[in-house]
Amino acid sequence: MTTIDEETSPRARLAEPDEAISLDELRLATRNHGMPLEMLDLDLTPPGLHYVLVHYDIPLLDPTSWRLEIDGHVERPVSLDLAALLGLPTVTHRVTLECAGNGRARTTPRPISQPWLDEAVGTAEWTGVELGPLLERAGVRDGAIDVVFTGADHGVERGVEQDYQRGLPLDLAVSAPLFLAHTMNGQPLPPQHGAPLRLVMPGWYGMAHVKWLVRITVLDRPFDGFQNESAYRIKQDQGDPGEPVTRILPRAMVRPPGFPDFQTRTRVVEAGTHRLTGRAWSGLAPIERVEVSVDGGATWADADLGPVPGPYEWRAWSSAWQADEPGRYELSVRATDAAGNTQPLEQRWNRQAMANNHVQRVPVVVRRR
Amino acid sequence: MTTIDEETSPRARLAEPDEAISLDELRLATRNHGMPLEMLDLDLTPPGLHYVLVHYDIPLLDPTSWRLEIDGHVERPVSLDLAALLGLPTVTHRVTLECAGNGRARTTPRPISQPWLDEAVGTAEWTGVELGPLLERAGVRDGAIDVVFTGADHGVERGVEQDYQRGLPLDLAVSAPLFLAHTMNGQPLPPQHGAPLRLVMPGWYGMAHVKWLVRITVLDRPFDGFQNESAYRIKQDQGDPGEPVTRILPRAMVRPPGFPDFQTRTRVVEAGTHRLTGRAWSGLAPIERVEVSVDGGATWADADLGPVPGPYEWRAWSSAWQADEPGRYELSVRATDAAGNTQPLEQRWNRQAMANNHVQRVPVVVRRR
Repeated sequence: MTTIDEETSPRARLAEPDEAISLDELRLATRNHGMPLEMLDLDLTPPGLHYVLVHYDIPLLDPTSWRLEIDGHVERPVSLDLAALLGLPTVTHRVTLECAGNGRARTTPRPISQPWLDEAVGTAEWTGVELGPLLERAGVRDGAIDVVFTGADHGVERGVEQDYQRGLPLDLAVSAPLFLAHTMNGQPLPPQHGAPLRLVMPGWYGMAHVKWLVRITVLDRPFDGFQNESAYRIKQDQGDPGEPVTRILPRAMVRPPGFPDFQTRTRVVEAGTHRLTGRAWSGLAPIERVEVSVDGGATWADADLGPVPGPYEWRAWSSAWQADEPGRYELSVRATDAAGNTQPLEQRWNRQAMANNHVQRVPVVVRRR
Repeated sequence: MTTIDEETSPRARLAEPDEAISLDELRLATRNHGMPLEMLDLDLTPPGLHYVLVHYDIPLLDPTSWRLEIDGHVERPVSLDLAALLGLPTVTHRVTLECAGNGRARTTPRPISQPWLDEAVGTAEWTGVELGPLLERAGVRDGAIDVVFTGADHGVERGVEQDYQRGLPLDLAVSAPLFLAHTMNGQPLPPQHGAPLRLVMPGWYGMAHVKWLVRITVLDRPFDGFQNESAYRIKQDQGDPGEPVTRILPRAMVRPPGFPDFQTRTRVVEAGTHRLTGRAWSGLAPIERVEVSVDGGATWADADLGPVPGPYEWRAWSSAWQADEPGRYELSVRATDAAGNTQPLEQRWNRQAMANNHVQRVPVVVRRR
């Protein structure tokens, strides 16, 4: 294995102030995809409409030969095939997932990476197996510190060749409501969502939910892999070690009303009263308040909240909009959670554009009936 | 209904020679998605990995109240609910679908629209109902000229508000192997592929395969709708009426070998002998020849063709690549069909970048073992 040069795998960089979307960003945007925002109409997002971010290639794993290995600093390494896993007791949760890089393309200056606008989100009902009993079966030894989840996806990133891996402190791995999901919305996982098994870590941004899981390794030292130590950090400059990206910050979105223009995606509605609808979520605390602005954020009105959802699931909201006067409007919506976290109107910048939760802006033209 | 202004729905334009991808193009790229090219490994592309292009919003139609109307220049208008349609005799075909705009982002100057690179393709097994017997039931009247297929998707495009509609000459509608599909890869259509019913027109680019089908109208005059007369035309300038986009031109693609860099998607393989694989298709005639180049198109070698596929389905190919010398390579592949159609190395330009079939170029780094 020889070094991969910087032309093949460049260092992180920021776009120039006037630099439009590059070919590198477009390549990522045509592979990965967001949730078309009209799917905010649905409680559960079907696969194919749920956002997907894949760092390398999607591996097509043979479910008959696939195994999950649990090893490292344990008494008895465990190896399970899919049939054995499917025979274990299950948990089912509805979980709202958002990419840590959602909104990146709207930051200035923009880091060159997956150029999400607003759409890297979705909610699915995941069914799987709890981690705790599996770790008990393996027997975690004294002195264990971290647990590492390894996917079958392999590639190179900023010069570092790797399998996709994420580490968690052991105490969090055994206390958090995380689980190993083999079922999405009642069906086996599709390839792009990690078939046959992925981690689901409710409340956390997508990078934690390791797909194509093949190995869980207990370490007697802290994990220092690329995705924890370099990629998913909130930092101000390259040298800054930064803080890890963890839980999803509060966010609300409005289902764009009316119909769109093909190219600009500007919405057109008839003059009159409309009921705006959407969803709001936070990985930090339950959603307590949603406010709507139809004048670009100058004034705000409280929306009506839908029924209290499951603990990890987005909450529906709605709000009447009396749009009697034809003209141009900008809709925005802002969530506040029970811990008092809310959304900024303008994004607070960080070097990798992670954990953005600035307010969405939807241009709408109201036309005379 | 009042006019929609040009700011909301701009006229078609070409990018400036040095203009990178615009926000308008990025918005489309994050909604629609291609087939990740590693899925060339699969005979059938699962939904969620099959390319999707949606002009407006994805309608969520209630299958219990949905109806298909057959009307216009007929003796007896027909109205069918989904249960009635599902009770009719079915046909099943594997069909390779490609977007007419595939490759657009690689043309110069580039029209501002969905900025596909190479990935707007997929093959699914579609099951549905033939059109001919339904038209017989309605009784097409003398003097009928065109048949118009109307989707439930509504929007505005270049200032023209519309339901998505495509017309076909009646003789083609009754003689072509087209059908109304309610099933994709053995499952009900997912929302983004036209649930509950779409047109499938084997051999034609994607624009013909109207999704969310709600109405089939027989006309006693030629159809002059936007998608036929303006959008899907091969023309040299705005004023040129141009020629309609119809059948898929021949194309081959190679499954990018090895593993990728996250950002550049450059591939890395070890020095040694590799078997390159991929698929080739043409809507004009069966695939007869596939050639591979590993030196950027300077020299070509014949690939081995896989078994003869169904009449509308891509054909597998493979080719040994002796990559003993570390360094940079560019892989290309070129299909030729039984009618003698082949692929250009450089794209022949047209004003809307339709029916592009220039040769794919895949940068690969071979490294020492």
